[in-house]
Amino acid sequence: MTEVLFTNIAQLVTPEAGPQRGAAMRELTILPDAALLVRDGLIAWVGRAKDAPKAQQTHDLGGVAVVPALIDPHTHAVWAGDRLSDFEARVEGVPYETILARGGGIRSTMRATRQASLDELVALALPRLQALTASGAATIEIKSGYGLDFETEVRMLEAVRLLRAKVPADLRPTLLLHVPPEENRAEYVQEVCHSLIPCVAREQLAEAVDVFCETEAFSVPETRAMLEAARLCGLKFKLHADQFHALGGTELACELGALSVDHLEASGEAQIAALAASPTVATVLPGVTLHLGLPAAPARALVDAGACVALGTDLNPGSAPVFSAQLALALGVRLDRLTPAEALTAATVNAAAALGLTDRGALSVGQRADFLALHSADWRDLPYTLGANPIQSSWIKGRLL
Amino acid sequence: MTEVLFTNIAQLVTPEAGPQRGAAMRELTILPDAALLVRDGLIAWVGRAKDAPKAQQTHDLGGVAVVPALIDPHTHAVWAGDRLSDFEARVEGVPYETILARGGGIRSTMRATRQASLDELVALALPRLQALTASGAATIEIKSGYGLDFETEVRMLEAVRLLRAKVPADLRPTLLLHVPPEENRAEYVQEVCHSLIPCVAREQLAEAVDVFCETEAFSVPETRAMLEAARLCGLKFKLHADQFHALGGTELACELGALSVDHLEASGEAQIAALAASPTVATVLPGVTLHLGLPAAPARALVDAGACVALGTDLNPGSAPVFSAQLALALGVRLDRLTPAEALTAATVNAAAALGLTDRGALSVGQRADFLALHSADWRDLPYTLGANPIQSSWIKGRLL
Ligand SMILES: [Zn+2]
Ligand SMILES: [Zn+2]
Repeated sequence: MTEVLFTNIAQLVTPEAGPQRGAAMRELTILPDAALLVRDGLIAWVGRAKDAPKAQQTHDLGGVAVVPALIDPHTHAVWAGDRLSDFEARVEGVPYETILARGGGIRSTMRATRQASLDELVALALPRLQALTASGAATIEIKSGYGLDFETEVRMLEAVRLLRAKVPADLRPTLLLHVPPEENRAEYVQEVCHSLIPCVAREQLAEAVDVFCETEAFSVPETRAMLEAARLCGLKFKLHADQFHALGGTELACELGALSVDHLEASGEAQIAALAASPTVATVLPGVTLHLGLPAAPARALVDAGACVALGTDLNPGSAPVFSAQLALALGVRLDRLTPAEALTAATVNAAAALGLTDRGALSVGQRADFLALHSADWRDLPYTLGANPIQSSWIKGRLL
Repeated sequence: MTEVLFTNIAQLVTPEAGPQRGAAMRELTILPDAALLVRDGLIAWVGRAKDAPKAQQTHDLGGVAVVPALIDPHTHAVWAGDRLSDFEARVEGVPYETILARGGGIRSTMRATRQASLDELVALALPRLQALTASGAATIEIKSGYGLDFETEVRMLEAVRLLRAKVPADLRPTLLLHVPPEENRAEYVQEVCHSLIPCVAREQLAEAVDVFCETEAFSVPETRAMLEAARLCGLKFKLHADQFHALGGTELACELGALSVDHLEASGEAQIAALAASPTVATVLPGVTLHLGLPAAPARALVDAGACVALGTDLNPGSAPVFSAQLALALGVRLDRLTPAEALTAATVNAAAALGLTDRGALSVGQRADFLALHSADWRDLPYTLGANPIQSSWIKGRLL
């Protein structure tokens, strides 16, 4: 048994454990002059310093604010190649069709990823995950999805497995069906359902299946078939939906009991109402809003309607080169009109719920001791700061990063 | 004499020296397989590695891209107190009048700054300037302006003088007339012209005078009086103008020959035309756009009209907690619709011009050897990256930071 009492916490700030909906997202506990007892990687006691129990060891945090570590529930952190020419062309006003015709766009990332070896994928992803971890993320979801062929999809998930030994953050792999093949689409969906998903489940390569449901990607019936296959195999499931068109993906997700629906930029009143009435988490991705200059998801309306809203980076080379969970949190306030308290809840317990996890995201007894000590004594420096790292130290399961 | 040849530069990228206007802002020189000779802090030779001259020492940069160091021409980096409660209240929808009535707003920063000692101001500003330097800035302008009383204005400028010994970046102080007094306004402007500006010039506490010309700040005639006093004392001068209302400050700046007009969110066709026809630099501040959620300055229209556009952080506690010159550059592409090449020019040679400097910002013979080696071999990672630091090493006058 190891036991450490963390002392000299100017302000300990946390949402309640478990998913928080609507107005409850604003209900933070703010404890001044606090202490935190960690036993074997879990929180054993939280309270005012004057009431603290004795412990084997103590660690003085220096009079700063402490918040739960962040959780990034949506990344595509494994890829090869780059999209710098696409980026430059797009901001110079070149139409997307021209960029595609030049060999750019997502298919260029897929080509480069297919050509990369397992070791190359691991080496390329490592600094990205180190950056996310330094930005405060202690749990990071990583999707496949640049493979198309099953061998590459599996290789991407194997890369995540190898990365788990190299990165202190807890990495959670998701099989993403991202882009349909140009031919034999029905057959491909059948193969995904009858071969890829069962194989991934059997080999424990992913814990969830995600499908990109969009006009240019998979239809609602195709999405339904793949999510039902995931459910049959005992995997959790989620969707990319309503990014450009509200096709019905959100309603499908709520009907089937998906963990989360992510993007939601095109969601309207019906989708907001469906999410408000469902345990499915609404994950918004403000980095995409900033990078592409497109309208934001209706996060404010979702919270006001009573939904459970989470924040993610969507780290990916084409639509969100956002290497910081803290920046996603800070952008959630600026671009998604979440309050600082709502944004903290969205980036911690609600992001955990988007991964099906209830053991982390809050600083309360029994939760994983994943927390951040800031440079400042006021937790609001975490959502406020742009362009610098307000985190002095990150602790995962009670251990200094 | 010290002489170092920097080798193994995958890509050396630079605008031309001196201010660049309109389409010339996109004309970067991109030299593959390059080398750079530095002699006594200045660039002595630039070219292809195979043509490099011999040198006393060599330094291998490891096959990465090299760009000029960034120049931040607009910060308010010296302040005391914080605006975290204002930030939270504003995003929760509290009207600005209510925030002011609670004792918030800029006057709370002024109160805290007046109460801070010189040593406190230095200690508070130091980590901010370290963050800006780490983000790639080798030259940083810092304004006074939270004093109102002359003693505090001078103390802020003295803080900049003391900070020069503590920060490797070159700090350039500006006297800012930011907020008019609530009473005896005409008398205050007279005192500024006849006492404060001459004193600051005599003591060499600032090299430029800046006036906030706005409905709630100084009028155009008041601004004219103070800028003319600056000119009489041999100081350079510039304006904050057109942030909320196009009152005529931009036209005044162009008429008097100001170094720059900064903000410009409310500029219309007449102001764009005036800047396009003038050597006065148009400095845009995308961090304010992001933080306050207000419309951006018409940077695209300014470049297209032929103006000389610069980028700055506007680092300040109320409207731009942006601690990174790299982020300002990255936001210039997303929010101001500059191309990556235009943004690099705006953040280097044009930012230098906004400070009246022509000795830096480009990697050409005779310029200061202020440069950045990136982690990557493609310079576009500098404007592309959000939320991580793409800079491997910063060199100021040829010395590693
Ligand atoms: Zn995604
Ligand atoms: Zn300013």
